[in-house]
Amino acid sequence: MCAPKDIIICGNQSKAEEFVKKVQGKKPAFVCVIGNTETAKIPGISAAGANPEFTDYTPAADMELLHYGKCKVIDGVPVTPDGIPTPAIITMSALELAEMPIFVVNGGCRVLPFTPYFEVGGTPGGDVRTGKAVENPKEVFEESFLLGKNLAKTVDYLVVGESTPGGTTTALGVLLALGYDAEGKESSSFPQNPHDLKINVVREGLTAAKADGKQIRGVLDAVAVVGDPMMPAAAGLVAGAALSVPVIMAGGTQMAAVLAVIKGMKPEVLKNIALGTTRWIIEDKQSDMISLVAQSAEVPILAVNLDFSESKYDGLRIYETGLVKEGAGAGGVSVAAILGSNGTITCRSLLEKIDENYARILDLEE
Amino acid sequence: MCAPKDIIICGNQSKAEEFVKKVQGKKPAFVCVIGNTETAKIPGISAAGANPEFTDYTPAADMELLHYGKCKVIDGVPVTPDGIPTPAIITMSALELAEMPIFVVNGGCRVLPFTPYFEVGGTPGGDVRTGKAVENPKEVFEESFLLGKNLAKTVDYLVVGESTPGGTTTALGVLLALGYDAEGKESSSFPQNPHDLKINVVREGLTAAKADGKQIRGVLDAVAVVGDPMMPAAAGLVAGAALSVPVIMAGGTQMAAVLAVIKGMKPEVLKNIALGTTRWIIEDKQSDMISLVAQSAEVPILAVNLDFSESKYDGLRIYETGLVKEGAGAGGVSVAAILGSNGTITCRSLLEKIDENYARILDLEE
Repeated sequence: MCAPKDIIICGNQSKAEEFVKKVQGKKPAFVCVIGNTETAKIPGISAAGANPEFTDYTPAADMELLHYGKCKVIDGVPVTPDGIPTPAIITMSALELAEMPIFVVNGGCRVLPFTPYFEVGGTPGGDVRTGKAVENPKEVFEESFLLGKNLAKTVDYLVVGESTPGGTTTALGVLLALGYDAEGKESSSFPQNPHDLKINVVREGLTAAKADGKQIRGVLDAVAVVGDPMMPAAAGLVAGAALSVPVIMAGGTQMAAVLAVIKGMKPEVLKNIALGTTRWIIEDKQSDMISLVAQSAEVPILAVNLDFSESKYDGLRIYETGLVKEGAGAGGVSVAAILGSNGTITCRSLLEKIDENYARILDLEE
Repeated sequence: MCAPKDIIICGNQSKAEEFVKKVQGKKPAFVCVIGNTETAKIPGISAAGANPEFTDYTPAADMELLHYGKCKVIDGVPVTPDGIPTPAIITMSALELAEMPIFVVNGGCRVLPFTPYFEVGGTPGGDVRTGKAVENPKEVFEESFLLGKNLAKTVDYLVVGESTPGGTTTALGVLLALGYDAEGKESSSFPQNPHDLKINVVREGLTAAKADGKQIRGVLDAVAVVGDPMMPAAAGLVAGAALSVPVIMAGGTQMAAVLAVIKGMKPEVLKNIALGTTRWIIEDKQSDMISLVAQSAEVPILAVNLDFSESKYDGLRIYETGLVKEGAGAGGVSVAAILGSNGTITCRSLLEKIDENYARILDLEE
């Protein structure tokens, strides 16, 4: 199923090859949807920040890193509680090598970046345990859909990623609310995936919604009850663009929930979509992205075959032990950079650039 | 200087032809920068709204019209005190014929549209009479510059317009503050241009700034004292994009002030810029766009040769008497639609589409 080259293909081989043929040598734009959810502040849920309260800053800081090569809302860069730096370092390196344009969409953030960003009517997300996670998913989906249609007129294709701490828990929420077999299949930025905690948190939210008399009649209801504000924005954006151009959804298991939303709203665009992620996600023993995606649609998964064991730096080599894995579109942007380069960008040249940026950002001696 | 065809060229003929050659047959994106200023609420200053207080709604309503073919923040469409409809009807018709993508940038609005829009750090503008018109032009210029650089990677070229009631007064302010010979040369949406009122208002602002000890040391200081929040956003956007692609600045005499800001910040990009406007502006006896532009740089002016005397509707025919004239990028977007169409879009087909949209929007019998 997976061959040892720059891009690993998972799932239906011929659909994947067909998709690759459509985008090879083409120039995409990267759109990153950012969101905050109070869910990320539940202790033990998210490692996308040095501590739970800090996760509010991670999406904004990631976007600043991608625009300026440094953060403004925080000193340094976002790190996990163990001090491992944000995967946005991978994204920025791939964007730089490919000279790919970047646009930010505010799904709903408490802390906003000092960069240009699109507003699409979103607001920050609530704690899923309340059963009131997202305020107005329909409006956000519709505005984002329109934005996707407009962006699709400007580029060959689109790469849509996300930065949303706590997002694998909300993804689990939406998938469980919709009846997917998702327990134990969502990934985590922690090395030890807190599956039980996530499941309990989501169940609490579903119970609370039921007690309030709230029924889940469609995908946007699932988002409203136990999702996060990134989801309707990303789903609308992807669906609007995929009406006319191919789209790579760049992310890990969080994108499986976005895919489920798209399937519920605009199933006709699924044929124009591929998932782009990292090897660390598809090889993760504690999650199962391939199963989650397959439950929505036969959409190809393209994983960048980055191997950090040959990095010069401990902080990057440690990715090989299963920390972080993915985020800020790292995998999908890498896939797009490689596919667009006619062979000039490889996993090797990408790792060199990542090492270089890592050293510069952390002010290390080479 | 000007020939009777679809596009009238003013100024240096060979520079204009060179610019036209660069963009002919190419596909641009339209970016519209919107802003509000308290200056528009001074009675007699702006006809971009049924009454002064209403001008806060005009930019948002214009953007909704361009996205949805109808407004959301108001019933109907923006009109002048005489009931003449917004020039955004021209823009929407040209966008529709050319299938041109549109993006909105919020320079600083009090009322925001129910459409996607970019934030670039702007805030609504104050009354120029206070000498404190715009809060943070430098930050807005820089974010917009970055946005322009990113947008330039996605399209052949950019058309940048604006919707800012009161904007000819703030344009006069910036030009006078910078020592331009601008008195009596700014256009107006009123049929009788209130030159004296505008000059007095601006002088009051310059006097107030001086009394506060504020000196004007550069173009962004002029914007801060007597400009409006559209200016730093539009100037940054144009300058960032024009580093690598051609840009049509779509607007009337307001764009002369934006051009002056660009000249002060990034003079090296002026060679990649043309002004796009309407015949009503360049033929206006009560203003002098050609002189205002020439004082900044030898930048070609391309004016769409729309003639509404053959429209089916009184509300459009009246444009020929000198009302409204320009706005929401009407002229420049029309120029771009014609230049990109290889002859399929003409002033005649554009007028047919405008008549059709006018009838639909105002719910008239054909």
